[in-house]
Amino acid sequence: MMNVLYLPELREMLAENDHQGLLEFCTALHPARTAEFMEALTIDEVWNVLRHADTQLQSEIFAYFEHPFQVEIIESRDPAEVAEMIACMSADDRVDLLSGVDEEAVTVILSLLPLEERRDFQRLSGHPEGTAGAIMTTEVARLSEDLTVRQALEELTRQAEHLETVYYIYIVDENDRLHGVVSTRQLVSSLGKSDRKLSELMEPEVIHCQVTEDQEEVLRKMADYDLLAIPVVDDTLQLVGIITHDDILDVVLEEAEEDAYRAAAVEPLEDSYLQTPIITLSWKRGVWLIILFIGALFTSMALGHFQEELNKFAWLVPFIPLVISTGGNTGNQSATLIIMALNKGDLTARDWFMVVRREILMGLILGSLLSILGYGIAFTEAPSAFAALVVPITVLAVVIAGTTVGSSLPLLFKSINLDPALMSNPFVAGIIDFLGIVIYMSVAILLLGD
Amino acid sequence: MMNVLYLPELREMLAENDHQGLLEFCTALHPARTAEFMEALTIDEVWNVLRHADTQLQSEIFAYFEHPFQVEIIESRDPAEVAEMIACMSADDRVDLLSGVDEEAVTVILSLLPLEERRDFQRLSGHPEGTAGAIMTTEVARLSEDLTVRQALEELTRQAEHLETVYYIYIVDENDRLHGVVSTRQLVSSLGKSDRKLSELMEPEVIHCQVTEDQEEVLRKMADYDLLAIPVVDDTLQLVGIITHDDILDVVLEEAEEDAYRAAAVEPLEDSYLQTPIITLSWKRGVWLIILFIGALFTSMALGHFQEELNKFAWLVPFIPLVISTGGNTGNQSATLIIMALNKGDLTARDWFMVVRREILMGLILGSLLSILGYGIAFTEAPSAFAALVVPITVLAVVIAGTTVGSSLPLLFKSINLDPALMSNPFVAGIIDFLGIVIYMSVAILLLGD
Repeated sequence: MMNVLYLPELREMLAENDHQGLLEFCTALHPARTAEFMEALTIDEVWNVLRHADTQLQSEIFAYFEHPFQVEIIESRDPAEVAEMIACMSADDRVDLLSGVDEEAVTVILSLLPLEERRDFQRLSGHPEGTAGAIMTTEVARLSEDLTVRQALEELTRQAEHLETVYYIYIVDENDRLHGVVSTRQLVSSLGKSDRKLSELMEPEVIHCQVTEDQEEVLRKMADYDLLAIPVVDDTLQLVGIITHDDILDVVLEEAEEDAYRAAAVEPLEDSYLQTPIITLSWKRGVWLIILFIGALFTSMALGHFQEELNKFAWLVPFIPLVISTGGNTGNQSATLIIMALNKGDLTARDWFMVVRREILMGLILGSLLSILGYGIAFTEAPSAFAALVVPITVLAVVIAGTTVGSSLPLLFKSINLDPALMSNPFVAGIIDFLGIVIYMSVAILLLGD
Repeated sequence: MMNVLYLPELREMLAENDHQGLLEFCTALHPARTAEFMEALTIDEVWNVLRHADTQLQSEIFAYFEHPFQVEIIESRDPAEVAEMIACMSADDRVDLLSGVDEEAVTVILSLLPLEERRDFQRLSGHPEGTAGAIMTTEVARLSEDLTVRQALEELTRQAEHLETVYYIYIVDENDRLHGVVSTRQLVSSLGKSDRKLSELMEPEVIHCQVTEDQEEVLRKMADYDLLAIPVVDDTLQLVGIITHDDILDVVLEEAEEDAYRAAAVEPLEDSYLQTPIITLSWKRGVWLIILFIGALFTSMALGHFQEELNKFAWLVPFIPLVISTGGNTGNQSATLIIMALNKGDLTARDWFMVVRREILMGLILGSLLSILGYGIAFTEAPSAFAALVVPITVLAVVIAGTTVGSSLPLLFKSINLDPALMSNPFVAGIIDFLGIVIYMSVAILLLGD
C-alpha cells in the first residue's frame, strides 16, 4: 500500500540536487503525510531527501516511518550523521527506535548524544516492557508553586520547545516530589489575574501512576478520569516522567490487537499482514496449530476408546460434530465474557463462586433450549424415541460443561497470576471437545447399555 | 464492585442535612472518584447529595456515573430540577445521556434548556450512530485569523469555560469555513511576540474529518497524526464540531470490546457482566448458539449421508474431531488475520488475489507439517499403510480449505459492504466443519473404494 504519487518528482529533484524543491517537499505537508510519500524510496534516497530539512523537522518526519524502515535507515548511515536527529526525538520514541537497532551501533550513537539525552535513555530503557516506565517520557513541564501565572507562562514559553506536551504543568517541591497540577487551560483562563500564584490555582490531589505500574492499569486510569496525560512517580513520589494521550492510544490499539490474535491462536505479528514474510507467518501460526492438533489427538483417542459402542450404535456417529461444536461455542462465549470482565476490572478471581453459579444457571437455560432442537432431529434418526434421548441429554450436559469450564479456566489462570487471555477460544474449545466426547459416550452407554 | 467506604458518613450528613459537609464531599476529590463513592447510595440520596454542589460540579460528577444509573436519576426527578444540570453538560454527553431516557421526559427537559443547547441537541442527535457527527461536540474554539496572539488569548479566556477543550484553536472565515489551526502550545510559545497575527502562526492544512465519516476512520486519522482533537466539517467545509481525544478513546475501547464479543458469537453487552440480567445474557448468547447449532446440524446431516462408508471403515470415525478442529483452527487464524488487516487499512477487498495466493501457500506449508503428524497416528490405527494415507491427505486438504475460505469470506463481506467482522471465528469454523466432513469422506471413498 505504498504511496507513489510524488515518486517521479522526488527522484528528479534528487537527481538535480534541488535543495529548494526538496526542502519545500519536507515542509509543505504534515510530517505524517510526508513520511507516507517517502516510503516508496530507497533508504539512500530517503536520507538524501531528509538532509535538506532542519534537524527538528527531520526527526518529526522520521518518527512517522514504520519501525523496521527506521531501523534500516539508522543502521545504514554513519552514526555521526544520524545522532543529531536522534537527539531531537522525544525520549520515549528514542528508546523505541534504538530497541531494534544493532547493539554496537547503539553504543556509538549514544556516545554522540548530549549527556542529558544519554541519561534519559539509560533511565527509560531500564524499565520492563508493559510498565508505565517503559512508555513514559521524561520531558515534562515542572514548575515551582511560588511562581505567579505570568511567571509560569514565561517559564513555559522558554521550556515549550523541549517538551512533548504543555497541557498539564506539574508543580514539584525542591526534591522533585509531586505537589499538584495546573492545566494550561487554567493558566489561560487566569490571564486576567496574572499575579495569582500557582499554589492558589493548582489541584493538590493529582491522579498519578507508579513507574512499575502495568500499562493496562495506566490506560484504565486515563480513560476513567479523561486525562490528556498522567504523571509517573517513583517510590519516593518523585516525578520521573509523564505518559501522554498518544502513547496510551498506541497501547490500547496494540493490546486490542494482541488479544484478537491470541483469541485466534496466532502469535501477535510485529509488522502488517502483507509485510510479514510467509515463513514468519507460518511459524507464528504453526506453533499453535501443532499444540491444538495434539490436543485434538486426545479427543480422537478418547473416541477410539469407544469404537465398540460406536459400531453397535452407528446412528450416534453423525451427531459427533454437533456435540463438539455446541460445547466449543458455549465455552468460547463464557471464556470471552469472563476474560473481558476481568480485563475491565468488573470481576476478580474471588468472584469465582458467584460467576460459576451464574454460568451453570445460564448453561441450564441455553442447554434446555438446544436440547429441544436436538431431540427433534435425533428422533428421526434414532431407533426409538427413548434412544433418541441420548442426544438432548448430551447437549444439555455439554452446554453446562461449556459454561462451567469456559468461565472457570480464565478465573483459575487469573488467580495463579497468569494472563487469563491465554485461556482463550481455541484452547477452551479443545478442552471442551474432549469433555464433550466423553460425556456423549457415557450418556450413550448409560441409556442404551453396553 | 461498589465502593462503600464513605457510606455511613454520607448517610449521617444527609440525615443531619449538613450542607457544609456534603459540599466538601462533592468538592474534595476528583469528580470521578466522588461519583464512585456515590454509587452505593439510592437514587434519592444521590440527588440529595448533589443538590449541595453548584450546577457545574453537579454535571461533572454526574458525568462519571454509569449510563443506566444516570438514566434512572433523570427519570426519577422532576424535569425542572435536572434541566439546569443537563444544560451544563457538554453537548455530546447530553445526547448520549438523553438517548436512554424516556421520550416524554426528554421533550419536557428539552423545552427547559436554553435555545442554543436545544439546537445543538437536535443537530447532534440527527447523526447516525458510528459516524463522526454522533460523537463530536459542537463546543469548539473558533477565532478569526485577523486576531493577534494577545487578542486571541483574551478571547480564549472569555470562551474557555464553555469549551470542552482549548488545546487547538480553529481559524474560520466569516462563513465558518475552516481556514487553519493554531495550538495553545503555539500561542503560549508566541507570548513573547504577542502582536503577531494568527494568520502568520496558523497551519493552513488542517487534518479534518467529514461529519458523515465512520468513527473508525476518524480514530485512524487521530492515531496516525497523533492528534488531541480533530475538527469536523460538513460538505460545504463549514466547521460544525470537534472530536476530542477522550471521545475517541471511548470509541476504541468500545470497538475493541464489540469485536471481541463478536469473535465469540455473543451480542455485545451494554452493561458489565455481573450487571447484565441472566435472562438478557441468555438471549444475547442464545440467538447465536441456535444459529450455530443449526449450522452444525448440516455438518451432521452431511456425515449421516456417509453412514454406510463409516460402518465399513469404522477406524475413520475417531479422526472426525481431529479433522474438524484442525480445519476450524486454521480458518479462524486466516479470518482473524484478514479482518484485522482490513480494519487497519493494510488491505482492501481488491487485494483478493494476492491474499488468497499467500494463504494457499501458507495452507500448503502448515498442512504438510500437520499431515506428517497425522500420518504417524493414523498408521497405528488404519488397516494398512496405504489406507492410513486418508488422514494426512484430508488434513492437508482441510488446512488449505481453511486458509482459503477463512481469508476469502471476510474479503467477500468487505467487497459487498458488510462488516467483515461478522465473518468471525464461530461462523468460519462452522462452514469449515462442513467442508471438512465432505473432504474427509470424499478422500476416503476415493482411496478406499466405495
